Amino acid sequence: MQYYMLDEQKAMDYVTETGLFSKKNNLSCREIGDGNLNLVFIIKDDVTEKSMVLKQALPYVRVVGESWPLSVNRTRIEANALEVQNKLVPGLVPKLYHRNDDMALIIMEDLSHLSLMRYGMVQMKKFPKFSDHISTFLANMLFYTSDLYVDSEAKKHLVQKFVNPELCKITEDLIFTDPYYDAERNNINPALRIYLEETFWKKEALWLEVSKLKYKFLTEAQSLLHGDLHTGSIFANANETRVFDTEFAFVGPSAFDVGKIIGNLLINYISWSGKDMNPTDIKDYRVYLLDTVNDLYQQFEQKFKNNWDRDLRDISAKVTGYQEFYMRNIFVDAVGYAGAVMIRRMHGLAHNIDVDGIEDLEKRKSVQILILELAETLIINRANFNTIEDITMLVRNRIY
Amino acid sequence: MQYYMLDEQKAMDYVTETGLFSKKNNLSCREIGDGNLNLVFIIKDDVTEKSMVLKQALPYVRVVGESWPLSVNRTRIEANALEVQNKLVPGLVPKLYHRNDDMALIIMEDLSHLSLMRYGMVQMKKFPKFSDHISTFLANMLFYTSDLYVDSEAKKHLVQKFVNPELCKITEDLIFTDPYYDAERNNINPALRIYLEETFWKKEALWLEVSKLKYKFLTEAQSLLHGDLHTGSIFANANETRVFDTEFAFVGPSAFDVGKIIGNLLINYISWSGKDMNPTDIKDYRVYLLDTVNDLYQQFEQKFKNNWDRDLRDISAKVTGYQEFYMRNIFVDAVGYAGAVMIRRMHGLAHNIDVDGIEDLEKRKSVQILILELAETLIINRANFNTIEDITMLVRNRIY
Repeated sequence: MQYYMLDEQKAMDYVTETGLFSKKNNLSCREIGDGNLNLVFIIKDDVTEKSMVLKQALPYVRVVGESWPLSVNRTRIEANALEVQNKLVPGLVPKLYHRNDDMALIIMEDLSHLSLMRYGMVQMKKFPKFSDHISTFLANMLFYTSDLYVDSEAKKHLVQKFVNPELCKITEDLIFTDPYYDAERNNINPALRIYLEETFWKKEALWLEVSKLKYKFLTEAQSLLHGDLHTGSIFANANETRVFDTEFAFVGPSAFDVGKIIGNLLINYISWSGKDMNPTDIKDYRVYLLDTVNDLYQQFEQKFKNNWDRDLRDISAKVTGYQEFYMRNIFVDAVGYAGAVMIRRMHGLAHNIDVDGIEDLEKRKSVQILILELAETLIINRANFNTIEDITMLVRNRIY
Repeated sequence: MQYYMLDEQKAMDYVTETGLFSKKNNLSCREIGDGNLNLVFIIKDDVTEKSMVLKQALPYVRVVGESWPLSVNRTRIEANALEVQNKLVPGLVPKLYHRNDDMALIIMEDLSHLSLMRYGMVQMKKFPKFSDHISTFLANMLFYTSDLYVDSEAKKHLVQKFVNPELCKITEDLIFTDPYYDAERNNINPALRIYLEETFWKKEALWLEVSKLKYKFLTEAQSLLHGDLHTGSIFANANETRVFDTEFAFVGPSAFDVGKIIGNLLINYISWSGKDMNPTDIKDYRVYLLDTVNDLYQQFEQKFKNNWDRDLRDISAKVTGYQEFYMRNIFVDAVGYAGAVMIRRMHGLAHNIDVDGIEDLEKRKSVQILILELAETLIINRANFNTIEDITMLVRNRIY
């Protein structure tokens, strides 16, 4: 089948062809994507109320002022990853109903009854099931796609299937490279520039440690990652949590997914320092956030070890001390990756509404510096922390 | 083209079809392979004296008492690797004249004027150009196929192209797993068994460190490796050195190739302790061997750094301290891999003639224990050595 771009009418026609809806007459369709990377249609049977999401990749990315071609191969990656996730963490990702790699489209579960976690968090919404759900997501995905569980040859085919050059390149550049010098693609708060020029970009020791983390991102084919696990890739409400947008999936260092989500929670934690809100509310929300970080990591670790005890296959991993070595590696690197993603959201290309919602640029700058300096501490000292509570205690002691 | 197995006549017919020889009438052909893994034909024009080697993969491996199917995909890997090597280290590998992936065959330069280095070394032959040549092989292959030089996306395609599940699995099992317990495939000198049972297989700290080295072998996609770089994969004489049999090629930890060749030189060094030779000759050859190890590593490091200074592309690797981090990683892991390959040749499936040439099983046992214990020291203490001379000094002080 030849690729063609859908519009609302064509999307309805396409869906009817698939047989996923019984009657065409009752369908309605709405395009809700931002149009930069993908088209996203919600298609609904107005009689039965049944609805689905159709996502189609566009063959380019539009970024500020330039055209950036991007192969639609990312839809194949996303569909492949959704298939694995639906086996290993059913109920924590959208169900996949249909894929068409030629058309670069997938049809999946409509999750519009949930809200984007990032938007909830800038409104101090709490997600009481989040740490339980995400720790399961991480423990299952990262254990059951690693050499601990997957047969040696199947693992190599997993690596091969998820080779994802274009999207990995984005991460390599935007997270691990551009923020450490005056790169053209950086998106810099003018009030922050002087700090970057006079202080941040002179931190060679920091850049060195980030380059070591980049080395692992480039080379360490440990587990199948989501690859972009931040609060903007999660739909949630009080009871449900769903991870989506998994087009960055590839086999990489397990710690990257863990660190990315933690870093994004810490960004939100610090962002309140720049906002005029009731201090009691801030304090309460911050307690919730650090509890969430602690819970998330502790539960992840416990569930991962439970998987290990139940399902470990590699005889080499049974030797005394190996589990400690393995878990320690993930912890140390996760702390480092948390720092790296905090930094990239301050003055790299893509920001967070958590901080960019602070309209006063001086106030925003102060928050950005707080975040940059905390991130630096995490990265430089990552091998000196022992538990996640060392991290949350440090954050609480420094910013409250 | 459908795969069919060649014999001498069919090999000549095939070669004639390729046009590599002008006249069919003058050809002669001889099969010289051991028939376990591959057929190897030398085809010669008896008038012009021009000759070539045709290697065809068999769709199985014969090991003691069982049939072990193995896909002929390894010829595709070998041909792909030969193409890369002929670009990066021309003159140090056989020239590739022709490949046919369907027929699982390659036609390449005839190197029968050279001798197998392993056989030369058990006769105390010296190879004065070896350390210069192999250090160039390692420095060029390991630098120019790494993220230091290769563009991010091309690197991912390199990884994908060289996914080599079956051959990697052999290394994972035979080097990193089987020797550490009483595995069925082990090939054990009966006189050594009691040492293994009462001592060696109880060394949990050693197995742990070997499992960490296995982890890197499983996950660290750093450079395109030869994958089986021992003295039985090298043809040489006083002036020439050619690395062949590169069917184990994959993108893995750079240190593996470096460590494997060093480990094999150290096996030869210790093997003389079990042989009745003139002590002066042994001493002289041992001085040569340790000089070779020092030269090989020091030249490798210098040439790798020269490549780095001339051709580094990744901006992240330019930060102060990164080169030291990178080279240190290779050194420490190479020491560990040297130890691991020494151990596997003592009581794993595949042995070396260097030690198995000692016919008295008690004497062989003594040498095997010397090697196992030196290897253990290397592996356990690998992070405590600073330079290759620390290693060679240790060897000289312990065994002379």
